[in-house]
Amino acid sequence: MATIRDVAKLAGVSVATVSRVLNNNGNVHKSTKEVVQAAITTLNYRPNEIARTLYKKNSRLLGLIIPDITNPFFTELARAIEDTAHRYGYTMVLCNTDEILEKEQHYMEVLKQRQADGCLMITNEKATFLDEELGIPIVALDRPIHSHIPFIQADHYQGGKIAAQTLLQKGSTQLVHIRGPKYLDSAEARYQGFLDVVEKEKISYHIFESSFQPRNDEFLINNIFERFPEIDGVFAANDVIAVSVLKTALHRGISVPEDLQIIGYDGILFGQLFYPSITTVAQPIYQLGKQAVQMLINLIEKKETEQKICRLPVQLVERDTTRKE
Amino acid sequence: MATIRDVAKLAGVSVATVSRVLNNNGNVHKSTKEVVQAAITTLNYRPNEIARTLYKKNSRLLGLIIPDITNPFFTELARAIEDTAHRYGYTMVLCNTDEILEKEQHYMEVLKQRQADGCLMITNEKATFLDEELGIPIVALDRPIHSHIPFIQADHYQGGKIAAQTLLQKGSTQLVHIRGPKYLDSAEARYQGFLDVVEKEKISYHIFESSFQPRNDEFLINNIFERFPEIDGVFAANDVIAVSVLKTALHRGISVPEDLQIIGYDGILFGQLFYPSITTVAQPIYQLGKQAVQMLINLIEKKETEQKICRLPVQLVERDTTRKE
Repeated sequence: MATIRDVAKLAGVSVATVSRVLNNNGNVHKSTKEVVQAAITTLNYRPNEIARTLYKKNSRLLGLIIPDITNPFFTELARAIEDTAHRYGYTMVLCNTDEILEKEQHYMEVLKQRQADGCLMITNEKATFLDEELGIPIVALDRPIHSHIPFIQADHYQGGKIAAQTLLQKGSTQLVHIRGPKYLDSAEARYQGFLDVVEKEKISYHIFESSFQPRNDEFLINNIFERFPEIDGVFAANDVIAVSVLKTALHRGISVPEDLQIIGYDGILFGQLFYPSITTVAQPIYQLGKQAVQMLINLIEKKETEQKICRLPVQLVERDTTRKE
Repeated sequence: MATIRDVAKLAGVSVATVSRVLNNNGNVHKSTKEVVQAAITTLNYRPNEIARTLYKKNSRLLGLIIPDITNPFFTELARAIEDTAHRYGYTMVLCNTDEILEKEQHYMEVLKQRQADGCLMITNEKATFLDEELGIPIVALDRPIHSHIPFIQADHYQGGKIAAQTLLQKGSTQLVHIRGPKYLDSAEARYQGFLDVVEKEKISYHIFESSFQPRNDEFLINNIFERFPEIDGVFAANDVIAVSVLKTALHRGISVPEDLQIIGYDGILFGQLFYPSITTVAQPIYQLGKQAVQMLINLIEKKETEQKICRLPVQLVERDTTRKE
């Protein structure tokens, strides 16, 4: 394999000049640059990235620390993040934590050792991960970590309001919200949005809490239908719960959307494959991932970040679990 | 941050001895080892992984090159691969190619530059990626690359046979197989398994080809029902197609499984959320990912790999789109 010395020799310049061309810094005359680039092409020279990392202190590795890639919201987010990282010349390391603190800490350790340039993180451990401690830039995704760590999420409060308003506008009068765990700010905000609408409109409602573990939802949902057969509108805190509500309702012979309207949350691709397909409050998942990477790269490259907190709008996607007007 | 020199000083040994303890090679007396380890703990010393890479030529980075993480089969595979890599002390870089050759080549280049230790690859480009060329070990996953590259997949031929036999045993007589693209060996094998059963049993059947792009399937499936209203059994080459067949059938008022039985393929987690839930021929997805990583690490560490080709058994998962006996 060709070395930087071979390139310098063929181009008739010093190694330092080749290095300046490679790193695009320092004054190099245009014609010299062209000769060096021709030599690089001729020799098929590839700079050794590991050596460059030691020299430049820049690994172009980004970490993505998420609970579980098989949660479809995270799957789509990871795809957007990898696409964007790749577009900016970064490589993405994937880390699944199952929301276990030890795993999160271990991965942070690994990223530090690999000299990752930065990290995108979805965690509930607010106090544990502080920017200074880690020594590399972090952007918090969906779940805030600390006021000094830049943070991006969808407007969940607005999402909760939209879901409640839609159910009411389309004629439901007995509502249920199956909310996410209390320790998640994003679940709390959806709940607050829902609550503010139903309280203001003086509508009858019940709140239940899902652990966001699909296996446990089935029992919960059956229990809801047993205890409150009169309910005619459900806002589920994510699409996977909405799908479980749909399945349970159909199994019990309840017509959807005639007797029961269902609105999910997230806007995962899978939602449209069901019959009837799931009406949902969609997060701009791809945009969230893309902007998170851009925020992180701005931090890494020490460019000014315009805002520490970025909140993206959500959008109602009307499909077939709500009634047509 | 503590350096290796600090550790050596505190332990009262040479830097070379600390290095031998860290790398677990060379003869170091048990008591010396303990003193060094105590010094490492006291100083909270972390070896610099990048420097180690240059020295040891071992980055402990693995590449995973797949078409698209949002395909649920690949999602679950990626999870298994990352879990296993992590267990063996490796970090996983995720690369989505959309089956575009230029992207695959680019990622190989990136992995080489980062001095990845090895790569798991799902690609259709048989000739392009040869082990020697790349310079790092590859294991081919699900799709073979070349006879000298170790390869692991599920027994798709057997899977096709099981699907056809199940439909027949449960009373279907007019079968359709919606197969995957012809250029995919794994789709071809499922098709062959199906074909061998229906030909032997002299059963009426039709074959259609899906591009494995969900957006295009809807038109195809409607067309099948228009042209062949008499069909009463469908074997879909993956679960996402099976779900589309289910949706289209229900939309047309066809009872499932009474008038139409459906069997999918893959065994993705989502299949159980539908109503009725999808009967499927399940690949051992987690096991595939796990064994692929183990094969790759064996190659990296130059241990003997017992077999160049590894084929894992598939399994029928009976749910509600097939009739109970």
